[in-house]
Amino acid sequence: MDYSTMKPSEVRALIRQGKLTGQTSGMCDGYAQGNLLVLPRAQAYDFLLFTQRNPKSCPILEVGDVGSRLVKRMAADADIATDIPKYRVWENGVMTGEYTDISQLWREDFVYFLIGCSFSFEGELLSAGVPVRHIEEGKNVPMYLTNIDCEPAGIFHGKLVVSMRPMPADQVIRAVSITASMPRVHGAPIHIGDPAKIGIADIHKPDFGDAVTIHEGEIPVFWCCGVTPQSVVMNAKPPIAISHAPGHMFITDVKNSLLKD
Amino acid sequence: MDYSTMKPSEVRALIRQGKLTGQTSGMCDGYAQGNLLVLPRAQAYDFLLFTQRNPKSCPILEVGDVGSRLVKRMAADADIATDIPKYRVWENGVMTGEYTDISQLWREDFVYFLIGCSFSFEGELLSAGVPVRHIEEGKNVPMYLTNIDCEPAGIFHGKLVVSMRPMPADQVIRAVSITASMPRVHGAPIHIGDPAKIGIADIHKPDFGDAVTIHEGEIPVFWCCGVTPQSVVMNAKPPIAISHAPGHMFITDVKNSLLKD
Repeated sequence: MDYSTMKPSEVRALIRQGKLTGQTSGMCDGYAQGNLLVLPRAQAYDFLLFTQRNPKSCPILEVGDVGSRLVKRMAADADIATDIPKYRVWENGVMTGEYTDISQLWREDFVYFLIGCSFSFEGELLSAGVPVRHIEEGKNVPMYLTNIDCEPAGIFHGKLVVSMRPMPADQVIRAVSITASMPRVHGAPIHIGDPAKIGIADIHKPDFGDAVTIHEGEIPVFWCCGVTPQSVVMNAKPPIAISHAPGHMFITDVKNSLLKD
Repeated sequence: MDYSTMKPSEVRALIRQGKLTGQTSGMCDGYAQGNLLVLPRAQAYDFLLFTQRNPKSCPILEVGDVGSRLVKRMAADADIATDIPKYRVWENGVMTGEYTDISQLWREDFVYFLIGCSFSFEGELLSAGVPVRHIEEGKNVPMYLTNIDCEPAGIFHGKLVVSMRPMPADQVIRAVSITASMPRVHGAPIHIGDPAKIGIADIHKPDFGDAVTIHEGEIPVFWCCGVTPQSVVMNAKPPIAISHAPGHMFITDVKNSLLKD
């Protein structure tokens, strides 16, 4: 089965039927995938405000109505409680289980947040001939905890997490230009060059993901990373939260190229 | 006194001292001015979600912490309850009073929203040689109720209000390009040309503001308007809401030219 050429609605149907429970990387080529975070209404205001104050870390694709599992804007006929291959449930900041369906766990006070993902702009970078090293090397993107504080909101606060892609100097401008036009998937980089300037001690030792090769003369380019909201939320230890399992994303009906404003 | 060349902090000090209670139009040339809306925490989640779902109508400059009058991001040392020349208080959707200071009315559960204003992009249009007819004619911008539904959020729903600026066809591209780069002050137009397409029966009879001259061959260009959130909120009749009085805005420390992302 070649999932890369299937329509998002077809893949979501397989996921909903429990026939597909693996990672979504490479599926439905060209369509945006989103990160999931579900919080009770009691914590949702603070988190919504956090996303408003930190739009480059937490670019919102869609926020559900209170209690609603229905995705309206980013997909047709989608159910956020069944259409993701794998979920993680967190209680007081501790992961307590993995599920392929959260229908039975859904509550009337739950609010879901679909958050844009850098997968979307990587496709655009590759199309434009900008190298994406971790894809070339078959690795996960290198991610680093910085010394930059997020703008706090209510119970949520913490340091910014960034992802890094090294590239030749003459590709940096193109990479900035392409990603700046995609604010709903992290937008322009937040830092270019010296890792120490943002509190990264060793570029070869990422805090999350894998180290990648940086060739002689290449410049590291740093983007805000979707791990930030997850780490910030889990640090706040809400009584319950649900996320997608890493790599097991929600596949939208919206093309990456349409995430330009 | 030439207010146009004064610093925002100086003008805000005069306003705070009650020495300046008039309209802020033309003051502190080049600095962004913002619309105010204050709501109790009980209605603030729905409104924050409304702004997230309708970013072109409700471009947020800053949202205060619950109970806080302090402006942190858009100005230094500013107090949202004293630094606007005139406020309006609304109870159940009905205006019940005008005040030059709302310190005595402030509550621990109040949340303020500072919302971007098209004044900011008009300066940029003028600098680029794009005509702004209502300024040429010394009028208020013409505004129209459309047949376009805003994306509803909780208790808030209603039709989109647009502002209109007519211009020669060869200026439209420049106007789109300039305003598209300013998403925090309404961004790119939402419609160009035929007013009937968005439910406007007579372009010469605006629902708010003044009619302006449209020269032979000029194209009307429509932008989302900051009147939308005000009308949507007042329609929902919250127990209490506070806004700025029309034309009596909050003057920020941020230059319009820096509202480009």
